[in-house]
Amino acid sequence: MTEVTRILAKWVVDSKFENIPANVRKSGVASFLNWMGCAVGGSRHETLDRAIAALKPFSGPEQAGILGRKERFDVMHAALLNGISSHVFDFDDTHLKTIIHPAGPVASAILPMAEWMPVTGAQLLHAFILGVEVECRIGNSVYPQHYDIGWHITGTAGVFGAAAAAGKLLGLDEQQMVWALGLAGTQSSGFREMFGTMTKSFHPGRAAQNGVASALLARQNYTSSNRVLEAPRGFAHVMSTKRDFNEIIGKLGEVWETALNSYKPFACGIVIHPAIDGCIQLRNEHRLQAEDIAKIDLRVDPLVLELTGKKTPQTGLEGKFSVYHSCEAAIIYGAAGEKEYADGVVRDRRVIALRDKVDAVSEEAINEDEVYVAVTLNDGRVLKKHVQHAIGSVANPMTEDKLIDKFNGLVRDVLPAKQGDELRELCWKLESLKDAGELARKAVAV
Amino acid sequence: MTEVTRILAKWVVDSKFENIPANVRKSGVASFLNWMGCAVGGSRHETLDRAIAALKPFSGPEQAGILGRKERFDVMHAALLNGISSHVFDFDDTHLKTIIHPAGPVASAILPMAEWMPVTGAQLLHAFILGVEVECRIGNSVYPQHYDIGWHITGTAGVFGAAAAAGKLLGLDEQQMVWALGLAGTQSSGFREMFGTMTKSFHPGRAAQNGVASALLARQNYTSSNRVLEAPRGFAHVMSTKRDFNEIIGKLGEVWETALNSYKPFACGIVIHPAIDGCIQLRNEHRLQAEDIAKIDLRVDPLVLELTGKKTPQTGLEGKFSVYHSCEAAIIYGAAGEKEYADGVVRDRRVIALRDKVDAVSEEAINEDEVYVAVTLNDGRVLKKHVQHAIGSVANPMTEDKLIDKFNGLVRDVLPAKQGDELRELCWKLESLKDAGELARKAVAV
Repeated sequence: MTEVTRILAKWVVDSKFENIPANVRKSGVASFLNWMGCAVGGSRHETLDRAIAALKPFSGPEQAGILGRKERFDVMHAALLNGISSHVFDFDDTHLKTIIHPAGPVASAILPMAEWMPVTGAQLLHAFILGVEVECRIGNSVYPQHYDIGWHITGTAGVFGAAAAAGKLLGLDEQQMVWALGLAGTQSSGFREMFGTMTKSFHPGRAAQNGVASALLARQNYTSSNRVLEAPRGFAHVMSTKRDFNEIIGKLGEVWETALNSYKPFACGIVIHPAIDGCIQLRNEHRLQAEDIAKIDLRVDPLVLELTGKKTPQTGLEGKFSVYHSCEAAIIYGAAGEKEYADGVVRDRRVIALRDKVDAVSEEAINEDEVYVAVTLNDGRVLKKHVQHAIGSVANPMTEDKLIDKFNGLVRDVLPAKQGDELRELCWKLESLKDAGELARKAVAV
Repeated sequence: MTEVTRILAKWVVDSKFENIPANVRKSGVASFLNWMGCAVGGSRHETLDRAIAALKPFSGPEQAGILGRKERFDVMHAALLNGISSHVFDFDDTHLKTIIHPAGPVASAILPMAEWMPVTGAQLLHAFILGVEVECRIGNSVYPQHYDIGWHITGTAGVFGAAAAAGKLLGLDEQQMVWALGLAGTQSSGFREMFGTMTKSFHPGRAAQNGVASALLARQNYTSSNRVLEAPRGFAHVMSTKRDFNEIIGKLGEVWETALNSYKPFACGIVIHPAIDGCIQLRNEHRLQAEDIAKIDLRVDPLVLELTGKKTPQTGLEGKFSVYHSCEAAIIYGAAGEKEYADGVVRDRRVIALRDKVDAVSEEAINEDEVYVAVTLNDGRVLKKHVQHAIGSVANPMTEDKLIDKFNGLVRDVLPAKQGDELRELCWKLESLKDAGELARKAVAV
C-alpha cells in the first residue's frame, strides 16, 4: 500500500522556501494578512472573554501575546485563543473546494511559536504555506462526503496543517513528522452541529493548539502510527466514506492549493455571499428602503438552506447562519460586516420585520457562487438581480484594495490607527522580516 | 425529539451521593484503587518521560502532582499525564460490554482538581461514579459499530465522562452541563490505528484533559450545542452507524454500569486474557518447560486475531497486542504482568523461539472470555485446557485479595513500601476522606 502519510511528511520536511512559486508566496501573504485582520478584529468578542476567564488560571509562562488583547499565555494556549478569535466573526479565508478556512488552524499555531523561538518571516511564511497545503490536500481527499457526515472540516483537516507547520518550524525529521501527523490525526474532531455557538470558533483554535502539541511530542520521539491517513483504521477510512489519496500526494510542489485561497467580503457563512452581494447591488442601484418592500424572493444553491436556513436567529452568531437575516441586513445597511451581526441588530424589530419577508427556495441547477434575487415592492414592481459569481469567489476575487479595506475595518476598533497601519505593513513584508515574532508584538493591545 | 443530552446532564447535576447504591460505591472504590495502581505503576514508562519533556515548558502553575513522579503541572496537564500513565501498561479496568477502560479518562480528570479546589472523598467518588456512568452509557449506545469503524472508545466516550465528572465537581448548572457535554463531544476522537504506539495511552489522557477544559469553559458560559449526543450532526450520528439513546437515558439511577466494571489480571489487551489464563494453568499443572514444547494451538474468539494478531512484535507495547507473545510468556514465566512486556523480553531469542510455535485460529462459536488451548510436547503428548470464563471476567471476577496483590505489584517498584501501603489504605477509605487531594499527595514520589 502507498505510504501516503510518509510521502506527505517527507515532502514537508524536504521542502525549501526558494522552491515555493512566487504566486503561492503572494497568496500566502494575503492569507496571513486576512487572518491577522480577522483575529485582531475578533479579539474583543465575548467568546474570547469567556475562554480567557476559564483558562487563564492554567496558563503556563507568558510566552506569547493574544492578538488584539493585553493578556499573555503560553504558546499552546495562545494558539487556541488566537484560533478562536480568527474564526469568531466567520469572516476568515476560504478554500472554496472544501469550505476549509485554512489560515485559522495554521497561522494560530505558528505565530505564537515565533515569540518563543527564533523564526524569520520567511520561515513563518514557508511553514504557513506548507501547513495550508497539507490541510487543504487532506480536505480534498475526503470532501464532500466527510463534510456531509457532519465533520467541521476546518477543525478535522486543520489539525494536520497545524502539526505540519509547527513541525516544520521545530525542524522535525521525517519519522518525527510522520508521528506528528499521527498524533494530529488521532485528535481530529469537531462537529458541524456546533455551528451558531461559541464552540464553532473553538474548532480552529483547538486544531491549532493540538497541532502544536503533536509536533512538540513528536520532537521528543513520542511514537504514533506510521500511516494515520491511509490505514484501514486511520483518518480517511474512519472519518469519511470517500477517500482519494492522490489528492494528498499527487503533484506535490506542482499544484498549490494555497494559491486557491479566497477571502470573504461578508462576515458570515460563505454560501450566503451571493445572496448578500445581489441584495446590496439591488439596494444601491434602486436606493431601496425597507419600508417599501413587500417581499424578497431568493433562488439559491441547495447548500444555502442546508447550512444557513435559520429562520429566526436569536443571536449574532445564529444570524451568521441565517440567509434571511443576512439579506435583510444587506438591504437595510448595505453591508454584512461584523456590525450587522451584533446581537442587538439581529433582535431589532425593524430588522425582524423585513427578515420575515425574505423567502428562499433552492434549485439544484444553481451554483454555490450564484443567486437569483427578486425584490417585490409595495407598489407591485419587481426588481431582479442575477449574480453569476459572487464577490470573493475564485472567479470574482477580492482586490488587494478591498482586502486592505477589510483589514482596516476589522482592526480599526481594536488597535490605534498608527499601530494598525504598521501591523498591516509588517504583514505585507512578512517574507523579509528577520524576526517573525515582531508581528505578534505589534498586534497586541498596549 | 427526545432531549437526550439535556436529560443526561440534568441527571448528573441533580444526582445526590446518598442515592448511590452501596454496591455501586464499592465498585467505584475498587475501580479507583485499580486505576491508582496502574497510574503509579506506569508513571516511570518512557512514554511519560517523553510527554513530560515535551510539555513541561508550557505547563501552568504547579497545581497538581503527577502520580508516581516528582514533577508538578497545572491541573489540565496533570489530567493528561496521569491519564497516559494509567493506560500505558494496558493493565487498567474494563467495562466488558464496550471494552471501555472507564477509570482513566474520569479519575485522571478529577484527582488533579482535588489538589486545586476543596473536594471531599465523597465528592470525588460521587463525581467519579457519575463520570463512569456517563461514558459507559454513551459507549453502550453506539457499541459495537462505533468501535468497529475504528474509534478507540475509551477516548471517544471517555471525554464525556471526564466532562461530566469535572462539571459535577465545579457545580455546573443544567445548561452549563449540557454545554460541557457539547464541548466534550466535539473533541471526541482517537483511532484504534494508534494501538501498539505511545499514542494509545495518549487517548484517555487527552480525554481527561479535554473533559476538564470543557467543564471549565462551560462554567464561564462558553456556549455549545444543546444536543451533542442526539443531533443529526452530533456524536451518535456522525461517529456511529448504530445508536440507541435508550442506553443513555433508560433507567438512569436504577441500572448502574459502574457496578459492571472489571479489573485485568494481565497487562495486555483483554481479549487475550482467556488464552493467557489457559496457558498459565497448563504450565502450572504440568510444570511445562519451553524446551519440551513442539507447538501451542489456540482456538479463540474472532476478536483476538483482529485486535491482537501481531505475529512478530518488536517492542513491549506491540507485545501487548500479540496473542503469540502473551501465550509464550505465560508458559515461560507463568505470568503476563508488566515485566513480561518489557522490550528486552519481547526481543529475547528463547522467547521468540517459543513464540513462533504458537498458532491461533478463530471460531465464531467461541466467546470473548473463552479459549481452547492445546500444547503438543516433543514426545507427542497433547495437553488440553478449556477456559470457559477467564479470570477477571464478569463471571469470574478478581477477588479483593487479587486486586490488592495487583496494586502492590504495580506500586512496589515506584513508591517506598510504607507509602504504597498508606496510599492503598487511603484509596479504600476514599468515601470518608475530608480532603481528596490527600490521595494525590500520597501518590507522588518524594
